[in-house]
Amino acid sequence: MERYDIAIIGTGPAGLEAALTAKNRNKSIILFGSKKLSPKMQVIEHPITNYLGLKNVTGREMAKIFLDQIEEAGIEITEKRVTTVYAMGDYFTLHLSDNEMVEASTVILGIGVVAGKPYPGENQFLGRGVSYCATCDAPLYRGKNVTVIGGSAEEESETDFLGEVCAEVNYIPLYKGEPKFTHDNIHVIHERPLEIKGGMKATSLVTDKQEIPTDCVFILRAAQFPEQLVPGLAMDNNSVKVDREMKTNIAGLFAAGDIVGQPYQFTKSAGEGNIAAISAATYLDQKKREAKA
Amino acid sequence: MERYDIAIIGTGPAGLEAALTAKNRNKSIILFGSKKLSPKMQVIEHPITNYLGLKNVTGREMAKIFLDQIEEAGIEITEKRVTTVYAMGDYFTLHLSDNEMVEASTVILGIGVVAGKPYPGENQFLGRGVSYCATCDAPLYRGKNVTVIGGSAEEESETDFLGEVCAEVNYIPLYKGEPKFTHDNIHVIHERPLEIKGGMKATSLVTDKQEIPTDCVFILRAAQFPEQLVPGLAMDNNSVKVDREMKTNIAGLFAAGDIVGQPYQFTKSAGEGNIAAISAATYLDQKKREAKA
Repeated sequence: MERYDIAIIGTGPAGLEAALTAKNRNKSIILFGSKKLSPKMQVIEHPITNYLGLKNVTGREMAKIFLDQIEEAGIEITEKRVTTVYAMGDYFTLHLSDNEMVEASTVILGIGVVAGKPYPGENQFLGRGVSYCATCDAPLYRGKNVTVIGGSAEEESETDFLGEVCAEVNYIPLYKGEPKFTHDNIHVIHERPLEIKGGMKATSLVTDKQEIPTDCVFILRAAQFPEQLVPGLAMDNNSVKVDREMKTNIAGLFAAGDIVGQPYQFTKSAGEGNIAAISAATYLDQKKREAKA
Repeated sequence: MERYDIAIIGTGPAGLEAALTAKNRNKSIILFGSKKLSPKMQVIEHPITNYLGLKNVTGREMAKIFLDQIEEAGIEITEKRVTTVYAMGDYFTLHLSDNEMVEASTVILGIGVVAGKPYPGENQFLGRGVSYCATCDAPLYRGKNVTVIGGSAEEESETDFLGEVCAEVNYIPLYKGEPKFTHDNIHVIHERPLEIKGGMKATSLVTDKQEIPTDCVFILRAAQFPEQLVPGLAMDNNSVKVDREMKTNIAGLFAAGDIVGQPYQFTKSAGEGNIAAISAATYLDQKKREAKA
């Protein structure tokens, strides 16, 4: 298996700047994220007035400029979801939603922040009736009834895949607008999820209106909680704990952007992405020198 | 005297981004620096390939884009040199090279790094035959012989002023190109300054070729050593010591960009300028709340 120098997760300003800088440093990279870049960018319709270098662009215009620059630099965006990052000592294994795996010597996390906290029961039943990845876990629930909590419209296609495999699918959108599906066995429910209940495994989702019996709750958020993405990652309240070089508590793993805390600002995220890439490159060069010595 | 909310010193990416963000936060600001922005930017003639948002611009093109954005945002650049920043407890007094003073509730330092260290004898004789400000201290050396170490061509006009006031002026340029002066009593010497010598006060400058007797050595660097600009400022080797919010050891004083350490990269500096401005705004708002309570 090819081992990349740096795997970058996230295509907000942090991940994109990290990719540009890593490329400048002649590192082999793989960049995971959406070609729509960050959802936050796509919804800003007023001019952004404090990104040095770009005068009064909307979020969508900014995304277009960034994407154009990334493409022209020859950087590809791999539109796959990374479900888990395992630290293997000298390298990392990234598990993807299509059940593939990728190896990298270093990882930069720039996945943004998730509002809120895990639902009560979410951590408890994870892997036992709670899943973050429809593509990965759908086969386990063939012919069963499942419930999806959808963080953004982008989760609708994964849900359609569940409709293909499962008996009945309840879909609870956390966003505005009416979801559209091709399968008739997907039922949209406009309620607020409150808690996941069960015994040995999850058996129901409690909302503000009812208790929905279910074999699995798929929680498809726009971003993941970092400590669920990377087992063993140290947090500082809701942010990934980093030092000024953007190092986390795991050697070779760096983080940048909203994920490491406020202010939630595009320039700040890009700046941190730059630092993270330089730190990753320095870490790699140091390892290479040690191997030679 | 008007007291600004935030005084920003430096017109590199850190200072400029700090100014944009402070303005966004409705703070009154004064921005000190050169309309040529940072000297570092002016000399980069190859394309910069990792500033997210600007595709393959040279340093000079980048400077033009930044300056245009700053002007359009209605931000003025005050082209005066700040010689000393005094922390007065609840506010700061900034002494300028024209002997004026400015007050500000908070200060953001973005003055870049000075290569190297102070010359032997420089700190020892500071104020006793060593000066950083021709405009301030020229009157003290009326009719005397002085020596100027010039860090960039921009120091030539200050040196011309010394030519007007002093008997003889030796000028040692640290940059390429032949300096031009209007006064005939200014003598250009292409030697390398090594040490300042003296007894109670400085009496000579030692170069790699000779020992030049002098009444004062004016050291006019493109940037100042931060601990000389701000008495009491805590350093970490050659960088200003800051935390992740860009706070220094002095309450209300923030720093960003090359001055706080590597990597020396434009995106990193802009990102830190953003953080510094948000931190300064938060500090000001906090003070206001405390005053009300």
